[in-house]
Amino acid sequence: MDRLAFTPIGVIHTPYQHLQDMPIQPAGAKGAVGTIVVEEAYAEGLADIEGFSHLILLYFFHASKGYELKVKPFLDDQIHGLFATRAPRRPNPIGLSIVPLLRREKNILHVDCIDVLDGTPLLDIKPFVPEFDAPAATATGWLEGKANLARRLRSDERFRE
Amino acid sequence: MDRLAFTPIGVIHTPYQHLQDMPIQPAGAKGAVGTIVVEEAYAEGLADIEGFSHLILLYFFHASKGYELKVKPFLDDQIHGLFATRAPRRPNPIGLSIVPLLRREKNILHVDCIDVLDGTPLLDIKPFVPEFDAPAATATGWLEGKANLARRLRSDERFRE
Repeated sequence: MDRLAFTPIGVIHTPYQHLQDMPIQPAGAKGAVGTIVVEEAYAEGLADIEGFSHLILLYFFHASKGYELKVKPFLDDQIHGLFATRAPRRPNPIGLSIVPLLRREKNILHVDCIDVLDGTPLLDIKPFVPEFDAPAATATGWLEGKANLARRLRSDERFRE
Repeated sequence: MDRLAFTPIGVIHTPYQHLQDMPIQPAGAKGAVGTIVVEEAYAEGLADIEGFSHLILLYFFHASKGYELKVKPFLDDQIHGLFATRAPRRPNPIGLSIVPLLRREKNILHVDCIDVLDGTPLLDIKPFVPEFDAPAATATGWLEGKANLARRLRSDERFRE
């Protein structure tokens, strides 16, 4: 298929310089404040974003190289299909985090619960809207009863390459 | 910044050949069944996905060209910053839909509530996990009281180019 080219619209700055010991989801990163510096050329597009309590961040997993189709994720000791996990090494390594917006200063967004490496390239920001994004009555397969472990579990280097 | 190249991992087939009169969110597409054909090379990565009731689809808005930083979205008659909307014309036109998984047949996923054009290139599939993806106590700015309109509102051609 055709290759598609994307260009980052900004950079996410965070307290995490290394994959080791980083939170694996926003739920485990409460109090970890990140700074999203959107390129000034796009600042006008941030108007009205401060009305939203939570943002969907799409970003590039820049520290992840390659991928395997079967992986042992952080939250289990069993192997699962890659697309049934949130592992960062993916054919298209696009990450997704939903984080609370603390405040905006012009082209800079301060967010809580950031769970990405410092210097992560930002691809898109969308407002989180529960009516669109939070279906009721969900089942979560192998993650059933394990997802809340993400509140305390930390990452390691396994998905670097 | 550097350009990043992604290659679709499959194609989403849907009942929608035209932007006109298409649902604008999965909430307005109940009963609209889509077929996600993942390239066979990636089929192994779908193992265990059938345990999840809902999938996060990331895809390329292939019918959207260019973007403007201020837009009048489908759900309002006021102009808002692009990143405070879900409009498809974006600097990186990556779409996100959370849809119920009906069943898997090898490399083919049947999903309900599909809200994308037929032939949409698929970039990634992630399992939807409410503990990661559905924060409580949210505020939705200009969309407050309007988001449920997405259950019946249909799109038009405004975001084609």
